Amino acid sequence: MASAARRPRGPPGLCWALLGPLGLCCGPAAAATNIVLLLMDDMGWGDLGAFGEPSKETPNLDQMAAEGMLFLDFYTASPLCSPSRAALLTGRLPVRNGFYTTNGHARNAYTPQDIVGGIPDSELLLPELLKKAGYTNKIIGKWHLGHRPQFHPLKHGFDEYYEDFKIDLKTGEANLTQLYLQEALDFISKQQAGQQPFFLYWAIDATHAPVYASKQFLGTSQRGLYGDAVREIDDSVGKILKHLQQLGISESTFVFFTSDNGAALISAPRQGGSNGPFLCGKQTTFEGGMREPAIAWWPGHIPAGGVSHQLGSVMDLFSTSLSLAGLQPPSDRQIDGIDLLRVILQGKLIDRPIFYYRGNELMAVRAGLYKAHYWTWSNSWEEHSKGIDFCPGQSVAGVTTHTQEEHTYLPLLFHLGRDPGEKYQISFGSEEYQRAVEHISGLVQQHKATLVPGQPQLNVCDQAVMNWSPPGCEKLGKCLKAPESDPKKCSWPH
Amino acid sequence: MASAARRPRGPPGLCWALLGPLGLCCGPAAAATNIVLLLMDDMGWGDLGAFGEPSKETPNLDQMAAEGMLFLDFYTASPLCSPSRAALLTGRLPVRNGFYTTNGHARNAYTPQDIVGGIPDSELLLPELLKKAGYTNKIIGKWHLGHRPQFHPLKHGFDEYYEDFKIDLKTGEANLTQLYLQEALDFISKQQAGQQPFFLYWAIDATHAPVYASKQFLGTSQRGLYGDAVREIDDSVGKILKHLQQLGISESTFVFFTSDNGAALISAPRQGGSNGPFLCGKQTTFEGGMREPAIAWWPGHIPAGGVSHQLGSVMDLFSTSLSLAGLQPPSDRQIDGIDLLRVILQGKLIDRPIFYYRGNELMAVRAGLYKAHYWTWSNSWEEHSKGIDFCPGQSVAGVTTHTQEEHTYLPLLFHLGRDPGEKYQISFGSEEYQRAVEHISGLVQQHKATLVPGQPQLNVCDQAVMNWSPPGCEKLGKCLKAPESDPKKCSWPH
Repeated sequence: MASAARRPRGPPGLCWALLGPLGLCCGPAAAATNIVLLLMDDMGWGDLGAFGEPSKETPNLDQMAAEGMLFLDFYTASPLCSPSRAALLTGRLPVRNGFYTTNGHARNAYTPQDIVGGIPDSELLLPELLKKAGYTNKIIGKWHLGHRPQFHPLKHGFDEYYEDFKIDLKTGEANLTQLYLQEALDFISKQQAGQQPFFLYWAIDATHAPVYASKQFLGTSQRGLYGDAVREIDDSVGKILKHLQQLGISESTFVFFTSDNGAALISAPRQGGSNGPFLCGKQTTFEGGMREPAIAWWPGHIPAGGVSHQLGSVMDLFSTSLSLAGLQPPSDRQIDGIDLLRVILQGKLIDRPIFYYRGNELMAVRAGLYKAHYWTWSNSWEEHSKGIDFCPGQSVAGVTTHTQEEHTYLPLLFHLGRDPGEKYQISFGSEEYQRAVEHISGLVQQHKATLVPGQPQLNVCDQAVMNWSPPGCEKLGKCLKAPESDPKKCSWPH
Repeated sequence: MASAARRPRGPPGLCWALLGPLGLCCGPAAAATNIVLLLMDDMGWGDLGAFGEPSKETPNLDQMAAEGMLFLDFYTASPLCSPSRAALLTGRLPVRNGFYTTNGHARNAYTPQDIVGGIPDSELLLPELLKKAGYTNKIIGKWHLGHRPQFHPLKHGFDEYYEDFKIDLKTGEANLTQLYLQEALDFISKQQAGQQPFFLYWAIDATHAPVYASKQFLGTSQRGLYGDAVREIDDSVGKILKHLQQLGISESTFVFFTSDNGAALISAPRQGGSNGPFLCGKQTTFEGGMREPAIAWWPGHIPAGGVSHQLGSVMDLFSTSLSLAGLQPPSDRQIDGIDLLRVILQGKLIDRPIFYYRGNELMAVRAGLYKAHYWTWSNSWEEHSKGIDFCPGQSVAGVTTHTQEEHTYLPLLFHLGRDPGEKYQISFGSEEYQRAVEHISGLVQQHKATLVPGQPQLNVCDQAVMNWSPPGCEKLGKCLKAPESDPKKCSWPH
């Protein structure tokens, strides 16, 4: 890898004219920026001090924001883990890249152990593209794009994959975040010694239930075990940033912090986080399910203390990373992410909508400060009656509905500036409604007209595909024989 | 007034030994710190960028926090205007200073135009005490402690009183905040030229419905008219702080920013603010009704960027101000406020409970991170059915009740660290419950044993006491004759 001093301070763009349709670029010789994506699991918008968490226990992340740029209107592409991560790595909506189901209407689907599908080979993942610019790519933590051999991260552009699990469910103690931290620091050190740029995808999971923290952080938070996990993550992020600075590569390393979906309120308060003033959480297309904490950090490039209201998406991390690497996005397919570098470096605002999907359905659309709901649903009465509640303590009549309510002809409209909590519908008869819905309806029409849904990957489950013989099982005499293949429709209740 | 250079940097304490029971101190010769209290009206905890408001439109207040100390656990003494303000100026709970009613159980009461009562002469107000240390005292904006001549601010220690009202209800345009700002800047300039310290009580009201902003701020906020008002206030606070700096007296002027009660959700979204992640709003003793945004600023004394979890109260502004003036609090009565200087200057934490009163009833108590509800009530079914909702979009079973529910024998317990939204009751049978409730019950017993309720001032209303002949009415030929006196019990529905 080139030393910091030899690297250009701005994003490299000299060789753009030479790029091919699949992002073939100038090769390893180009001086490209390192990329570190810090992706949290089920962390909510309201979980950081900088975003108003009342305990304010994230000094390192708050400092990261103070030195970088805070994104207040940044979204995931799905209120659930797997589709969100597939969208981040492909720059494409799950409905395009196949990370959705058609087993039921508007159902969230993910990749349980018995899922048959995974990331299709036809999808181009960020690390695959970055390799063309000479990047060394590592994923630490959660992959979530399929378990079968053909879906392995090393088959999709990553050079290294580190994952581990061992949590004491009783005490909530686990040193996993420390392992992930050490792995990150080691990778950065090793890369820095080489000549290649690197991409580190740090997809840790300590804030996903079952939540955990290592001993030194247990009991340190006002917020209980969940807060302990957040504190350990905060400390770890601080150490990663400091490491980059100490190695002298902070100015040649772009770091972005965000989360895969909103806080899992179903696990709150001990195992779930906070979505601040927003409605509901994970699994829903209300703001609490989809708006994410987000911070960009790149000393010497991003003006310190910046705040952006750019409508951003995890899919933009795909396009922005390519731009940082001097690569162009693939031109043979629809990419939903946009390059945020002008936003981050020059404070521009790019006009673009946010599409809120739940499975195969476009539930809502945000344009500017307006959000139109075309469908509303939290979960079924049946699930709700069992205590599964995605909106605990919250209830907005006609909005947090327990039946799937269609509003495609007369969407429910909210103004997220005046009403971030989606509590006050704008009157159907008002001029404001007419104007905003007309605009958003045009965007929807345009979006749907060009939409080519991908082959749904999350329809079929089969116990035979589970890993019955994990490495080391022979020594322990615990290898199991896989059952006969018996593919079934996966059950997606919400 | 002494110049900044001649003033001590720390709070003066040399003459404390000489103080009398009513706070008689060393007289004007003592070099005392100027005091500026910026009291907002119905502004909620979640209304500032520093507290997580998603539009982040308060750069000056956020900067004030960055240069000073942010209080995350700061409370009012009542979820309604008049009692809160009476508590601030007397350092005493409304149930002591008389700003409550016994007409009904647990009813919020204030000072409408026909109220007969007001601040009793027996109460010692902050400005009265500060006069003894040579302060010149000015109130700009809302007094709220009674309308009859004997209750006038100039009869209770203020030297100057500036108030004005003229709002275009249709457009929301009014330049009142500008008038209040100019009045503040002029007062500060004038005082700075003299030799006396000053106390400025800037009790503005632009965020109380009907909300307003001056022309230059109308339409500038993402948050609509309410946000315009907040932006104008933010701008004004920035100008006041800058003025202090330009006059060279910022290091001899203690400034504190807070609000009288939580955001009035009943007026949201166009006329009401945000209580962030907290439950309900104004009128209630849930966190949304009582927890306030709070910032202390005193360059050269308060370490920049401080954050405090001290349980604080508007009543502490009384005691802290006296301390700044080198005065001791009155010793002939119970003072509920505590001196926060050790907290502010040295980052100490003082162990003390917060009592949440609604009218004559102790509804809840906070100690540490635990809050015990002894009574729960939002408002009556009757009111609620008319659309009066203090908790819009929020509903916590058994907590946001529409009948007054007594829990004095088995209080509802919440952990505000894990659960700032008061959504998850701690199980009655748990050890945690036993321990916390035992502790809080002891505090309640102690509190009640020593409580001497004041004569309730807000029981009687009489149209005859209204101001039927305001100044200038003769010229306009609009003086009205007061009706015969007909005192009645005031009606306090919630």
